[in-house]
This record gives sequence, structure tokens and C-alpha cells, in this order.
Amino acid sequence: MTDPAPAATAHAIRRPVLWYWEDFAVGTVREFGRWEVTREAVIDFARQFDPQPFHLDDAAAEASLFGRLAASGWHTCAMAMRMTCDEYLLDAASLGSPGLERLAWPRPVFPGDVMHMRTTVLQTRPLASRSGVGVVQSRSEMLNQDGEIALVWEGAGFFGRRPDAAPAPMP
Amino acid sequence: MTDPAPAATAHAIRRPVLWYWEDFAVGTVREFGRWEVTREAVIDFARQFDPQPFHLDDAAAEASLFGRLAASGWHTCAMAMRMTCDEYLLDAASLGSPGLERLAWPRPVFPGDVMHMRTTVLQTRPLASRSGVGVVQSRSEMLNQDGEIALVWEGAGFFGRRPDAAPAPMP
Repeated sequence: MTDPAPAATAHAIRRPVLWYWEDFAVGTVREFGRWEVTREAVIDFARQFDPQPFHLDDAAAEASLFGRLAASGWHTCAMAMRMTCDEYLLDAASLGSPGLERLAWPRPVFPGDVMHMRTTVLQTRPLASRSGVGVVQSRSEMLNQDGEIALVWEGAGFFGRRPDAAPAPMP
Repeated sequence: MTDPAPAATAHAIRRPVLWYWEDFAVGTVREFGRWEVTREAVIDFARQFDPQPFHLDDAAAEASLFGRLAASGWHTCAMAMRMTCDEYLLDAASLGSPGLERLAWPRPVFPGDVMHMRTTVLQTRPLASRSGVGVVQSRSEMLNQDGEIALVWEGAGFFGRRPDAAPAPMP
């Protein structure tokens, strides 16, 4: 079988783990990322996954509650996820997520907006059902260039616990 | 400006509204949709939005909690959204969503899986802050070919209320 994603695969395999469950401290706030939202990307995502008129068509969007062409809420989640991956998740012993307790879209994301992220560690605990795994409960917010929150989610992520032999990360 | 999405735009503009807020009856369950999950789509979405190793690379996925290459949770939401659009949202006076109270990924979605949807209307109410708009609270589940639930969300959608002049839909 040919490798369908050579660059990404190589990237995935080679990246060393810097952050384990023990490295997430309750109360820590990170601000990071920069995502320019383009009209092309908004329409491309909507065509594939959420072809409601206010995500595709200017006139329809103007007549909607959004007022103008706005990104699908699922597209905004995808943007937030990618920024989170690039900031720390790809350097962490991330094991996936069972879900979210809350997901809110308090305001639209428009083409031309420049988004960034703020994440807050809310709670951590070992996972009782599986040794070597811990849970990190966190809140993720995506904000626009005016500091307005367009997306909030709160949920759990699973992370591998630090092996005895692994060195502590740089402070 | 040239039209960036001629087919979708035409589709969006021409599609008449069949379903208003009044047409969502509490307790109604719909089963619908069919979505074949391909390896190419899983990797393509992950590359763009969630490039964690278990979404991109077979060997990394085999060593993960997923056991084999699995779709990003955000990709599963996008699949569910598209099936929901095609089933009824594009025929409804849909006005967007303020968010979800719950989003769970109880099991992975793998390439080769064939997914479908089940939605249940939980509650409806007029939106106090804006006349002409109502809220539909619903649960959406995405199931695989074995009837196993891979995605659940519960949340609110805004819908336009039926104008006095609009005819009732076909029963």
C-alpha cells in the first residue's frame, strides 16, 4: 500500500512527546494561535458539510440572523482544533476525547476575521478504569481580532501519564 | 465578483421552506442518511484540522486507544451535520444554533464504516427575545452499520415560525 500522507505521517511519527498528563496544572491559561478566516475556506467547508444558505450565499446570509456570510459552527470547531494541535496537542501524549459537556457559539465567525485561542485547565484526575491514563478537563475559547468569544467548549481529554524513565519537560 | 459556488448557491436560493418551528413535534424520532466513511476522507480531514497521529497513520493508530485509524471527532460531527442538512435542515426555516449541552464520542468511527443518523425532538419553545423565532431542542445520534452509537449531541436549533399565510406541510 502506498503511503497516503507521507509528510503528515512522518511528522506524526517523528514528533517526540514533551507533555504528559502530569504536566497539565489546574488554572493554567494559554493564549495562542492565529487563524485568518477566508471566504473560500468558509464556502468550501460549508459545501462539504453544512450547506445551509447563510454559510454559502451572501444574499441569503444578509437576510439571516447572521447578517452576512458566516462560517459553519463545525468549521469554527475544526479551526480551534487545528490551532490546539499545533500549539500543544501534537507534542503531548494525547489519547483522544470522550466528549464535551458544553459547546457554545456565542457569535458568528466571518470571512476576514482573525481568530486565536485561549485554553484553561479546569481539573485533572487519573482515569480509574485504565492505569497509565489521566483525564484533563479544560475550557477552550476561540476569540476574534476584537477579543470577542465566538466559540467555547468544555470537555475532557485523555493523556498518557509520564513513564518513570521520562525526563521532566523544560520549565 | 464571480460567484464562488454557483451550484450550491442556486440550490440554497431555490429551495423552498417546507418546515417551520411549529412542525417539530416533541418525541418525533427520525432515522435517515447513509455515509460511507473512506480512508481518504478521514486522512484529508485530519490533515487539515486534527493531525493527531491516530487520525493519520496506521501504525500510530494501532498503538493508540483507538486500535486502528479512526476519524477525528470533529469529522464525525461534520458527517452528522451534512446528513442532517440533507434530510431536513435545508428544507426548514433553519436559523442556526447557539450551541450544544452535550457532545459525546462513545466509540470511534473507522474507514469502511457506514453511518446513519437518528434524531429525536426533545423540547420546543418560542424564543422570548425575538418574535418569529422558536427553539427546537433535539438529540442527534450517529450510528454505524452495527447499530452502535458513535456520536451523540444534544442542543438547540433556532427555526423561523410559520407565517400566517404559509400553508401547512404535507402530512
